[in-house]
Amino acid sequence: LLGVTHFFGFSMVLLLAFFMNSFGDGAAWPRKASGGSGGDQLHGLLMAVAFVFLQGEALLAYRVYRYNVKILSKLIHAALHTVVIGMSATAFAVIILTKNASKNPHFSSIHSWIGLSVLFIYATQYTFGLMTFLLPCAPLKTRARMLPVHRLVGAACLAIATCQCIVGFVQVVNWGGVSCFGTLSCKNRMEYVANVCMMTMIIYSAMVIVLI
Amino acid sequence: LLGVTHFFGFSMVLLLAFFMNSFGDGAAWPRKASGGSGGDQLHGLLMAVAFVFLQGEALLAYRVYRYNVKILSKLIHAALHTVVIGMSATAFAVIILTKNASKNPHFSSIHSWIGLSVLFIYATQYTFGLMTFLLPCAPLKTRARMLPVHRLVGAACLAIATCQCIVGFVQVVNWGGVSCFGTLSCKNRMEYVANVCMMTMIIYSAMVIVLI
Ligand code: HEM
Ligand code: HEM
Ligand code: HEM
Ligand code: HEM
Ligand SMILES: O=C1O[C@H]([C@@H](O)CO)C(O)=C1O
Repeated sequence: LLGVTHFFGFSMVLLLAFFMNSFGDGAAWPRKASGGSGGDQLHGLLMAVAFVFLQGEALLAYRVYRYNVKILSKLIHAALHTVVIGMSATAFAVIILTKNASKNPHFSSIHSWIGLSVLFIYATQYTFGLMTFLLPCAPLKTRARMLPVHRLVGAACLAIATCQCIVGFVQVVNWGGVSCFGTLSCKNRMEYVANVCMMTMIIYSAMVIVLI
Repeated sequence: LLGVTHFFGFSMVLLLAFFMNSFGDGAAWPRKASGGSGGDQLHGLLMAVAFVFLQGEALLAYRVYRYNVKILSKLIHAALHTVVIGMSATAFAVIILTKNASKNPHFSSIHSWIGLSVLFIYATQYTFGLMTFLLPCAPLKTRARMLPVHRLVGAACLAIATCQCIVGFVQVVNWGGVSCFGTLSCKNRMEYVANVCMMTMIIYSAMVIVLI
């Protein structure tokens, strides 16, 4: 089951990279000159890899390395979450620059509201996780009491992030109006690649949540 | 906590009814003459009330009526799920008619793919639930073995349905292009009502999942 989960995870990343680079103008660092073009797809690529794939792998760390010493799993779990923090901070900077370049207002869509909430919850969870479980300052009793909360918030974070990524995808795919879906005139049917990628993402994150 | 959950649930339904009736052309039965106009909002209204609010209340039945005999909770749980089946079948018919009237192709978007999956999973869960827990045909051992599966699939159904509703909302809000969000020229800022409604929906369904 773990193998199947990883299969969906890797497929998701491949489809994602293919779609984001091939759709529209591709993924690129946002520049004033291009009106930020390509920035939203770079944002989406980084966010989806970080918040779904890498966060998923972090949550699985205690399953994959179950026969190794506990501290190894714990360090891998923490290291992967640290990478997620770095990549999502970059992705956040990318979308801010993109919106500045395209002169669109910030934080008006539901995607941006959920996005800020998830980033905030994730950063809080990371800080508490670090202080409670990694640094030697918390007593065993605190650790035991925090663990179920840590698990619940962690699973919720992955679920909401997956939904958030789907909303982001729908926005990108519908950008040029739905006319393309409406008339089925979509060039190269790239939209279907996005659909399959999203289905893979949902299956991957559902399997991770069942496994942990 | 149950009271707070209900508060979010009721607020969600009120905001939903207000938004769907006030946005664009309002909610209406799709007709050929109008090109199906209003049908997508009637679909969204029925689906969100059925799949998030009523399904949520059905899952809470064992909590709300915890001091009554078990069979009462069970009948309420089953009755609410039956209403969900009826309303979502209607909502499904509405969107099919809408798409026929507007001459758009069926089942091309990720929303329609997830939608069909959720409807299928829900119908299966309903059939198994009825046969295992309500009709007197299943022995106690089967019931006990099925319960954890029933709970997990049920919680997953609510989570995915919530995500599905948000995607539907995003499509409806972005219909006229994102230009309105882009320039913040949205008439009466109805889009913000939709955003608050979606946030309420997420909080409601997260609280239901924590409570069950
Ligand atoms: C958990 C993952 C994600 C988070 C936390 C996130 C967060 C955000 C935030 C906070 C904004 C608002 C920026 C602003 O208003 O200045 C934003 C905008 C945007 N994001 Fe994401 N995002 C995520 C995933 C994605 C994905 C996967 C895609 C696309 C495939 C995407 C596409 C967009 C687009 C097109 C915008 C600009 C339009 C808008 O504000 O709604 N996002 N994102
Ligand atoms: C550096 C920060 C973190 C540390 C040191 C840490 C530490 C831990 C520890 C010790 C466990 C217990 C494993 C066990 O005994 O079964 C755990 C589990 C878990 N953590 Fe973290 N954590 C951190 C960050 C996060 C973050 C940011 C999230 C998600 C937002 C998260 C989500 C989870 C989940 C879902 C579990 C349950 C996984 C399972 O049982 O397989 N953690 N973490
Ligand atoms: C769990 C709840 C929902 C389910 C199961 C669901 C299911 C579906 C299905 C199966 C279709 C495809 C119809 C076709 O292609 O002929 C569809 C289309 C649509 N739905 Fe929903 N829906 C749900 C919630 C919503 C909500 C809350 C809204 C709006 C607020 C909405 C808006 C739309 C729109 C605009 C379409 C037409 C565009 C498209 O195919 O993507 N839906 N829905
Ligand atoms: C007529 C059909 C159904 C019957 C007879 C039925 C019966 C039951 C029973 C007996 C329980 C056990 C309560 C307990 O002992 O704690 C239960 C719990 C549950 N059911 Fe159903 N069920 C049906 C349909 C559904 C459907 C369609 C869903 C969701 C898709 C669902 C989701 C749940 C959930 C999440 C729980 C756990 C709730 C809790 O523990 O509070 N059920 N159901
Ligand atoms: O730091 C830790 O806290 C929990 C546990 O000790 C709490 O009961 C755990 O598994 C760790 O590795």
